[in-house]
Amino acid sequence: MSDRIAYAPFKELVVSAEEAAKYVNHGDRVGISGFTGAGYPKALPTAIAEKAKAAHAAGEEFAIDLFSGASTAPDCDGVLAEADALRFRSPYNSDPILRNKVNSGDLLYQDIHLSHSGQQVEEGFYGDFQVAIIEVVRVMEDGNIVPSSAVGNNLEYIDAADKIILEVNYWQSENLEGMHDIYRIEKLPHRLPIPITQVDDRIGTTFIELPKEKVVAIVETNAPDRNAPFKEPDEVSEKIAANFLSFLDGEVQAGRLAYDRFIMQSGVGNVPNAVMAGLLESKFENIQAYTEVIQDGMLNLIDAGKMTIASATSFALSPEYADKMNAEAERYRKHIILRPQQVSNHPEVIRRLGLIASNGMIEADIYGNINSTNVGGSRIMNGTGGSGDFTRNGYITTFVSPSVAKDGAISAIVPFVSHTDHTEHDTMAIITEYGVADLRGLAPRERVEKVIAVAHPEYRPLLQEYYERAKKNKFIHTPHDLKTAFDFQINFAEKGDMRG
Amino acid sequence: MSDRIAYAPFKELVVSAEEAAKYVNHGDRVGISGFTGAGYPKALPTAIAEKAKAAHAAGEEFAIDLFSGASTAPDCDGVLAEADALRFRSPYNSDPILRNKVNSGDLLYQDIHLSHSGQQVEEGFYGDFQVAIIEVVRVMEDGNIVPSSAVGNNLEYIDAADKIILEVNYWQSENLEGMHDIYRIEKLPHRLPIPITQVDDRIGTTFIELPKEKVVAIVETNAPDRNAPFKEPDEVSEKIAANFLSFLDGEVQAGRLAYDRFIMQSGVGNVPNAVMAGLLESKFENIQAYTEVIQDGMLNLIDAGKMTIASATSFALSPEYADKMNAEAERYRKHIILRPQQVSNHPEVIRRLGLIASNGMIEADIYGNINSTNVGGSRIMNGTGGSGDFTRNGYITTFVSPSVAKDGAISAIVPFVSHTDHTEHDTMAIITEYGVADLRGLAPRERVEKVIAVAHPEYRPLLQEYYERAKKNKFIHTPHDLKTAFDFQINFAEKGDMRG
Repeated sequence: MSDRIAYAPFKELVVSAEEAAKYVNHGDRVGISGFTGAGYPKALPTAIAEKAKAAHAAGEEFAIDLFSGASTAPDCDGVLAEADALRFRSPYNSDPILRNKVNSGDLLYQDIHLSHSGQQVEEGFYGDFQVAIIEVVRVMEDGNIVPSSAVGNNLEYIDAADKIILEVNYWQSENLEGMHDIYRIEKLPHRLPIPITQVDDRIGTTFIELPKEKVVAIVETNAPDRNAPFKEPDEVSEKIAANFLSFLDGEVQAGRLAYDRFIMQSGVGNVPNAVMAGLLESKFENIQAYTEVIQDGMLNLIDAGKMTIASATSFALSPEYADKMNAEAERYRKHIILRPQQVSNHPEVIRRLGLIASNGMIEADIYGNINSTNVGGSRIMNGTGGSGDFTRNGYITTFVSPSVAKDGAISAIVPFVSHTDHTEHDTMAIITEYGVADLRGLAPRERVEKVIAVAHPEYRPLLQEYYERAKKNKFIHTPHDLKTAFDFQINFAEKGDMRG
Repeated sequence: MSDRIAYAPFKELVVSAEEAAKYVNHGDRVGISGFTGAGYPKALPTAIAEKAKAAHAAGEEFAIDLFSGASTAPDCDGVLAEADALRFRSPYNSDPILRNKVNSGDLLYQDIHLSHSGQQVEEGFYGDFQVAIIEVVRVMEDGNIVPSSAVGNNLEYIDAADKIILEVNYWQSENLEGMHDIYRIEKLPHRLPIPITQVDDRIGTTFIELPKEKVVAIVETNAPDRNAPFKEPDEVSEKIAANFLSFLDGEVQAGRLAYDRFIMQSGVGNVPNAVMAGLLESKFENIQAYTEVIQDGMLNLIDAGKMTIASATSFALSPEYADKMNAEAERYRKHIILRPQQVSNHPEVIRRLGLIASNGMIEADIYGNINSTNVGGSRIMNGTGGSGDFTRNGYITTFVSPSVAKDGAISAIVPFVSHTDHTEHDTMAIITEYGVADLRGLAPRERVEKVIAVAHPEYRPLLQEYYERAKKNKFIHTPHDLKTAFDFQINFAEKGDMRG
């Protein structure tokens, strides 16, 4: 094993996580590395949680505001939320304990576009940051750092924080070095074009320049990233994927897409996995990804020679594929670029490249408004993440979802979304196992039939009934009956079934 | 008067509007110049309307799909809607007759982001275009054209259409020549960075290259652009403007803005006029505008030496100021750039430059979601226009509105917006005559108090009541009571007053 802390002055800073946690105090704003279950600090969160518990046991206050790239994992968000060590969390979360505390009102959560979060930290919208905690593969000879399996908002938190704590994680492969492309967007008013015109353009450095004087502690860890295990796609996911791929075929027929070099963006989950499995067998070649996270299916596409390049800010690999990445990073880094999330999700680059975007949803309404975040308008699931960055600026933007959940008690198609994360102005296609509702170029009343057609057959008459009732009103640009607009969601809350 | 049709072969194509209208047939997709009441064709619309009326009188079908830059005026949208000559309209409208036909269900209207509309035409989302009708200042010696007072989607319609009809409008000043900056965004997959890094960067030509073989007719006109007359700001607008300006002062104090070279984007109307009047007396110097439309107030700022450059895609000048522009275009063109709307509203440039965006709204909810378009969820007013382009990508994004309308019967702050055009993830500040609700960096529950504080005092207890009721639910990330969420809007529809 090589020297993971190659900058001599830092060797003296190596301490235990408990000792390093002394730099994190009640009321601090703390920015951490990590995006999905990758690249987050593995040791400090538990140490901070212990410190919080001790403080609370002693009758003292202890809570911090925590900022990351996106979600983390149970040994970060989970332990901190469990210990009531958080007052505020942003910009994304998927931890069940943290989510429960947010929904019960015990914790504040600001859910914002992932391309905006770093910029807003930089611009001081949150105030000062006291601490940054960054996981790294290694500290280089000159004291600069090689980030680990996520870049996220590392630059912004390093810049903003007074003190930096590094976690050197020996579990992460040293061969990740060379995979990153760290580009710094100039500050206002001196911003320049981001010079990416092809997915595989490298425009920065493979390391992060570190203001070494800010580093107060270094902790050594040897702990895995944690993402969900891979699940074989079920029948419904496979049908949705087939519909998505046949939609792409239609775009090729229409001359709007080519089988060569299609650029994908994809959310995570069962349906995207099924799409990627489908792409393996498809006519598409030299596929490229400009997206947030590298998933198992992308490694399969790379292995099969179907995908030439995948650009993201992070991994979201199953444990099995994470091991594979660690074993073969040297090979994969020829096909993978990890960028800061301001770059991976930047409207400028997304619009320029012309992505086919595909994201999940909680519910869509009959006009194409999308709820990605709040069940019943109030209960946060994860967050909007980068779905808005890609939907707003992509070339063709789709939402994919099974038509029902909870054995049919929940319909993904409703009369009126109980929260809007993507507006009718942005949604181009809604895809379920029943087909593709292609909404491009259509006025609201033209969209209804198409959206109802991809709802579950049991819900179609209920949706149609609503629409007929709504059309009786005086003003029918976007026919609605506000008195019954939320009946589906109210039924579900009261009776456990949207059908009432 | 110089030769306005300097390309000899075109002289033979000069015909009356009635004759030119023969090229426009039932079922056609027609793209026209024009953005707000500027630069739209003045003669063909009436001729097409007459043709439609004659067809209808003869029992024949006649309706076209009409696409523009944004809204036009009574002698375009108005006459066409009145004659039932339209099946479909996009991307924006503000004509009362057309609006009524949309709301009664007689006409389809697709309201989309103005930066997306041209791109979607180009990408074939609407199908083929048969005709483009473009108002020009003149045809140059080589057959290329100088656009008039709006650039809009001229390039996209000229490219897409089979046949082009030009309207040469002698009312438009020949000194507009030199004011335009026509830049063509490359088609996918060959797009390059748009090389604007300063508001005053000129990156294109002062004319549009015309595929001359497509031109089938030329019509000469001498008719004014039509925008609303200027109204002196009322007391409420002045208070809102004062709050907006004091918010900007706060940003300067916080180090996030400078008195020198602040870049504004502004919607149109009374409040923006009052803001510009306020800027005249402010400490801000060398003000720049990167926006959609040039308004009266900007000419005042230019005249006073307070504004150095205004970049837009169109004028929205009162008749008095339009005359002033026509008389003094030679002077103004040193300070004004008219760009294609894909460029004036492009996310890439907007995010790079760092705009302070300010747009109107119909209603905001207590969490910061914004309805810009549909009263009561169903009744379209104008459209989302470019508000999303600027709100989504601006540096600081604000919505400005009087707290009440119709003598207090309508509150601009409601428990739940009846349509969402801008999500809680995008809104940074809501400004009324009662103050500024600065929502930056806040979780949903933290925003409520701030939003209610800028509501009209009569509505504050009602909003607070709603919030208290909503907080009793089990899940309170975004507390809502879906059963009563639309009570304000239902009261207004049934009783003419949101208070019930």
